[in-house]
Amino acid sequence: MREVAIIGIGMMKWGELWEKSIRDLCVEAALNCLKDAGTDRVDSITVGTMSSGLFTGQEHLASIVPDYLGTKNAPAMRVESACASGGLAVKSGFMEVASGLSDFVLAVGVEKMTDVSGGEATYALATAADQEWEGFHGVTFPGLYAMMALAHMEKYGTTREQLADVAVKNHFNGSMNSHAQFPMKVTREQVMNSVMVADPIRILDCSPITDGAAAVLLTTVEEAQKITNHPLTVISGIGHATDTIALSQRSDLYSLKAVEIATERALKMAGKTIENIDFAEVHDCFTIAEIMVMEAMGVVKPGQGGPATSDGFSSLEGSFPINPSGGLKSKGHPVGATGVAQIVEAVNQLRGLSENRQIKNAKTALTQNMGGSGGSSVVHILEVK
Amino acid sequence: MREVAIIGIGMMKWGELWEKSIRDLCVEAALNCLKDAGTDRVDSITVGTMSSGLFTGQEHLASIVPDYLGTKNAPAMRVESACASGGLAVKSGFMEVASGLSDFVLAVGVEKMTDVSGGEATYALATAADQEWEGFHGVTFPGLYAMMALAHMEKYGTTREQLADVAVKNHFNGSMNSHAQFPMKVTREQVMNSVMVADPIRILDCSPITDGAAAVLLTTVEEAQKITNHPLTVISGIGHATDTIALSQRSDLYSLKAVEIATERALKMAGKTIENIDFAEVHDCFTIAEIMVMEAMGVVKPGQGGPATSDGFSSLEGSFPINPSGGLKSKGHPVGATGVAQIVEAVNQLRGLSENRQIKNAKTALTQNMGGSGGSSVVHILEVK
Repeated sequence: MREVAIIGIGMMKWGELWEKSIRDLCVEAALNCLKDAGTDRVDSITVGTMSSGLFTGQEHLASIVPDYLGTKNAPAMRVESACASGGLAVKSGFMEVASGLSDFVLAVGVEKMTDVSGGEATYALATAADQEWEGFHGVTFPGLYAMMALAHMEKYGTTREQLADVAVKNHFNGSMNSHAQFPMKVTREQVMNSVMVADPIRILDCSPITDGAAAVLLTTVEEAQKITNHPLTVISGIGHATDTIALSQRSDLYSLKAVEIATERALKMAGKTIENIDFAEVHDCFTIAEIMVMEAMGVVKPGQGGPATSDGFSSLEGSFPINPSGGLKSKGHPVGATGVAQIVEAVNQLRGLSENRQIKNAKTALTQNMGGSGGSSVVHILEVK
Repeated sequence: MREVAIIGIGMMKWGELWEKSIRDLCVEAALNCLKDAGTDRVDSITVGTMSSGLFTGQEHLASIVPDYLGTKNAPAMRVESACASGGLAVKSGFMEVASGLSDFVLAVGVEKMTDVSGGEATYALATAADQEWEGFHGVTFPGLYAMMALAHMEKYGTTREQLADVAVKNHFNGSMNSHAQFPMKVTREQVMNSVMVADPIRILDCSPITDGAAAVLLTTVEEAQKITNHPLTVISGIGHATDTIALSQRSDLYSLKAVEIATERALKMAGKTIENIDFAEVHDCFTIAEIMVMEAMGVVKPGQGGPATSDGFSSLEGSFPINPSGGLKSKGHPVGATGVAQIVEAVNQLRGLSENRQIKNAKTALTQNMGGSGGSSVVHILEVK
């Protein structure tokens, strides 16, 4: 297996981008990435998007992206695993380089979510749940994560304040990220008094609906060394796992088995333990999700995610910083783009270029991307070589 | 790069399968494949589907398939390139085995198309065209291929009779395929007198809307040799290319650049020329498509696809048999399943098990899968090792 490096990263300020179509978003992120990489060589493209069909009436982004990027005739593949589609775009790009099939693979993640009504967006997102056993009956994601939050509170005594503190931390980090959709700081009181969505989840516990894209350029270490002036960042581990799509089929509602297994697989491949990781970007689609992910990854013991968050354990200055970018909460969550953007942030941190939110001496990063209510998860380990 | 073999194939009779959901179809094809392979080891899964979101309200098949197949926690990835999604499922499975990331990868292709109205199905399929420049203005696929047919007739003198003869040949082949949706023979007159859809394309020039799935199991040659009793079939070449998604951006309407490039790449990787290929399964979504694909692949010179078809060149007994399965025309076209089913047919032929439609001494096969109006294409070369 050939070793794979990341030599370019690109995105843009995320938000409600009415003036940019889905193809504009892909091209802008890709061009920013190629400029950053210092090469425009693209042998092949992967595109992560959850549901461009339902959100924009455009499938076949595998043809759109090379066409509009100007890499005519390049092979391209769209990949999807709901909100973990971006992570899969990077994984499939990794496989293509590692296998020797292509030398330079561009992985793009994108979602254009605001050209439909709120109800249509909620329907589109609900197609990541079990259509027959959940979606058809009207359950949507705030409701699914609310059930998980209640189960976690009941099992471990996790508090409403601890949920709020995830949002407070991530918005604080995001306030220093010029790409963030919602770069305002929030207080614990603001979160706890925000509009109720599905008890106990309030609007400030939820990641937003966002338009955005992100891209990374992957190549072999050998090629990377010829081109890049940055510290060389390699993907040393990938873990990918699934779980039952429906919550009702799990043994419990307060743990995330796919995240646990994906993390174990990624660490094993990288020859590391969780203690060797300096920081992580994780999938905080709801505040409870970050707490459950911390526990599933083994960063803290089960039940300790909430207290650890409130104690500052996962803050920028804490023992294990989580979501220095602001996470999905503050940076935004264009679902197919998120997994790629996590890697953009991780690489930028490993290069030491994250300015006010830079984590000191960051040499090893983990990114954790998740689909649905934990029905799938993709974990990457990145290292400065 | 590790060499990759196909040790299992599976599908079912395709049609309007009201009693089977999309998850049922995936599981049935997968179980048939594992039974054929003689092992139930599945390390990872790829799923090709064009638009399960628009057709069934279910994205995240990457979680559904391992969940319902009983391979709990296995990594899974949905891939898409419109009607070339099945070909990509096999390509991505190939990369995963070739790279060393997994040893046994199950590639499933599926589409469940008949649970929506005809208008909704036509809309869903049109998302494979350029949404802004084609779909939004009401153009659908029969119209796009009608324009290509008219351009081809104008340029080369291709006749209405020659188009019909593609349908006659493929329905003849399909009449011997127990999995075919429309296994009836048709005459040239029946095709030419069938209902007009978009001049010159009539209903019997069109592939149908279909429910169906297909699956193949990929592994290393080393593992395959331990398990299989069949002649060992390997994937020796993969070619994948794209073209502009919109017809209006092409230099002409009577050729298929993505098919030409994908074929060249696949042959180069396999170290072969088109003369070394014994037969092909190609993407006859409309009768004109098969003629244009023959020319793009270099099987015949540009403009000779029509006359060659009428001369029997591509019949079962001809110099270069095309679509022994009956093709999309007769076998059916559940869009995400088609690319995988082409490989199922090719492997079955290479094993010598295709009964009445068996091609004599078939040792090397080519499969060509296509997205949209030729916006993407994936070509595989299979050989008996």
